[in-house]
Amino acid sequence: MIYLDNAATTKPCREAVEAVIKASEEFGNPSSLHGLGLRAEKLINEARSTLASRLKVDKKHIYFTSGGTEANNLAIFGVADAMKRTGKRVITSGIEHPSVLEAFKRLAAMGYEVVFADTDKDGRVNVESIKNALTPDTILVSIMHVNNETGVIQPIEEIAKAVKTAAPKCIFHSDCVQSFCKLPVYPSELGADMVTISAHKIHGFKGCGALYTGNTRLIPQLYGGEQQNEIRPGTENTAGILAFGASCDAAVCDAEAMRKKRALMRDELLKYVPWAAVNGSDEFNSGSVLNVSFPGIKAEILLHSLERYEIYISTGSACSSHKPQPSHVLTAMGVDTASVSGAVRISFSQYTTDDEIIEAARKIAAEAETIKRYMR
Amino acid sequence: MIYLDNAATTKPCREAVEAVIKASEEFGNPSSLHGLGLRAEKLINEARSTLASRLKVDKKHIYFTSGGTEANNLAIFGVADAMKRTGKRVITSGIEHPSVLEAFKRLAAMGYEVVFADTDKDGRVNVESIKNALTPDTILVSIMHVNNETGVIQPIEEIAKAVKTAAPKCIFHSDCVQSFCKLPVYPSELGADMVTISAHKIHGFKGCGALYTGNTRLIPQLYGGEQQNEIRPGTENTAGILAFGASCDAAVCDAEAMRKKRALMRDELLKYVPWAAVNGSDEFNSGSVLNVSFPGIKAEILLHSLERYEIYISTGSACSSHKPQPSHVLTAMGVDTASVSGAVRISFSQYTTDDEIIEAARKIAAEAETIKRYMR
Repeated sequence: MIYLDNAATTKPCREAVEAVIKASEEFGNPSSLHGLGLRAEKLINEARSTLASRLKVDKKHIYFTSGGTEANNLAIFGVADAMKRTGKRVITSGIEHPSVLEAFKRLAAMGYEVVFADTDKDGRVNVESIKNALTPDTILVSIMHVNNETGVIQPIEEIAKAVKTAAPKCIFHSDCVQSFCKLPVYPSELGADMVTISAHKIHGFKGCGALYTGNTRLIPQLYGGEQQNEIRPGTENTAGILAFGASCDAAVCDAEAMRKKRALMRDELLKYVPWAAVNGSDEFNSGSVLNVSFPGIKAEILLHSLERYEIYISTGSACSSHKPQPSHVLTAMGVDTASVSGAVRISFSQYTTDDEIIEAARKIAAEAETIKRYMR
Repeated sequence: MIYLDNAATTKPCREAVEAVIKASEEFGNPSSLHGLGLRAEKLINEARSTLASRLKVDKKHIYFTSGGTEANNLAIFGVADAMKRTGKRVITSGIEHPSVLEAFKRLAAMGYEVVFADTDKDGRVNVESIKNALTPDTILVSIMHVNNETGVIQPIEEIAKAVKTAAPKCIFHSDCVQSFCKLPVYPSELGADMVTISAHKIHGFKGCGALYTGNTRLIPQLYGGEQQNEIRPGTENTAGILAFGASCDAAVCDAEAMRKKRALMRDELLKYVPWAAVNGSDEFNSGSVLNVSFPGIKAEILLHSLERYEIYISTGSACSSHKPQPSHVLTAMGVDTASVSGAVRISFSQYTTDDEIIEAARKIAAEAETIKRYMR
């Protein structure tokens, strides 16, 4: 098998699996008063410390959630609710993950004034568009660090500066699910007040994410026990959290190596298929995703034709793949219709080898040519 | 080790651990279009079927959540939001889990008319109190099936009938976290429109629960991808879900056996410590929990003194144990102050043996007597 859909999810690493097995033995309820509970609580705190040191933040500002979706929702609704008396203007982009986009649409339905900033042809959110949208009473801006369909790195630092200049009280949140443990993600350097991360994109398990909140005041979105300062109640997913810590510890975080993998796949593909076209900036790319269009063919057919070789790639993001709609990301970038429907996402992990890339490129190219011939 | 805190959490069973390891191999994103994704989706659906057949319901009405807290919140806020134009009256009891109690307090802060029904001395919610509170425009009633601190079975069928008579459109939700796989939990027989269940109370992993919704119309509480009909978006916690299915499959569900365990512990304890007193009905008890007061001693001291023997019990529920407050459940039952502060919860699982119970009872009794002597 050659698995090249790592932006959708990754294979849990050995360390993560071992952490889950450990959690099944250290099974006390972390809120229990007895030693078994305290031991579970201690292990959770160790995982929190691991994540905090990778982010270079204080661990008391990290709240575990059921994943990126819940963390993004907690950030967005938590701030919108907490600051509704300060203002109702909120800004995001058109290329965010559905868990940000749909949350902002919900805010619009609730009476908030929502602006979706423009995106440039290269897949980067237009900073001027955000500057133009900012007002002194803007309460929240949410822009992702790395796009999940193109791998394009967004101008987070510039946006953060613009936000703090125009609206000093405004909270700037960044969905860093696709960048965490791939690029350096330091909220203080990015200028982000809040950051979302997720375990299953870095070889942890699905069902566990976290929100770094800084000192941001948030209204909780769940009500219950006193866990996690009542900001996020509910018995902690000990196994998922320990695996998150372990996978973070095991993450190599070598952006240069990832960029080489992407460049190798791109060069191999373009060598065989000169009519293919890369979507999104090469310069500002995390290296973890190559989005490439084969205009005139249906990406879904290509995806399925590769399955017989056990090569796995995707069309767009997994979160919207059961609802076949043109990619909102490529559309926002102004990519033409034929190129949108012929676009595939090839995504890498630290475990992807050059041999796998070379082998997959040859197969993808051959299949694309065959399909193109049939479609003529 | 003798672990008698199974109402707080249980040790993941072998089948659950194996399911998690399987999920680490079948690691595709269940929303991915390719075969790896479809296989993960199929496994999730099998787990959903297992739970559905245990509940005797249609699997399409089961939504996975991050646990009991989120499932209770989704039920309560989801209905309150969906039916706010029908009415604003909602009813619960004073002995619910914090994830129900705090959600109702939040509804009160949001302008809903919240009634907390009375509880009788035996730990059962007073049905007359609910009947008196019901109005034709009541939109939601939430009463747990089995109380987490006493094991007392609530008169769910009677309450359901009262609800449907007084307010035919009213939704009746029951938190069945403590009864699922211990007693038969059939929503149709209970008369419950919605039911909450949780994996880590039945030897699954923490971080996974489910809400059975029936045909109830709910406003989602999370926004994002199209997973789970957009009622509960976010990449599914595949490992937790497969383990939930496996632990449900492995659950014996022998209420008679559980009642015998509880009776054995009760009789042994009262034999040694005649001044101890059982809290809550013996007649209406799931058998999974024995709540017993040693008036005049501090329960916390007893709990810690037992740790040297690796015997684990609890005071009240784990979810509020870090905030030392008198049990809201025992207080609502009218238990006197000395008995509340001397109350411990001893809770059993299908794996608890008679030998463990006899051994633990002797140690608990001896420690209680010693502490009592010191406190004189």
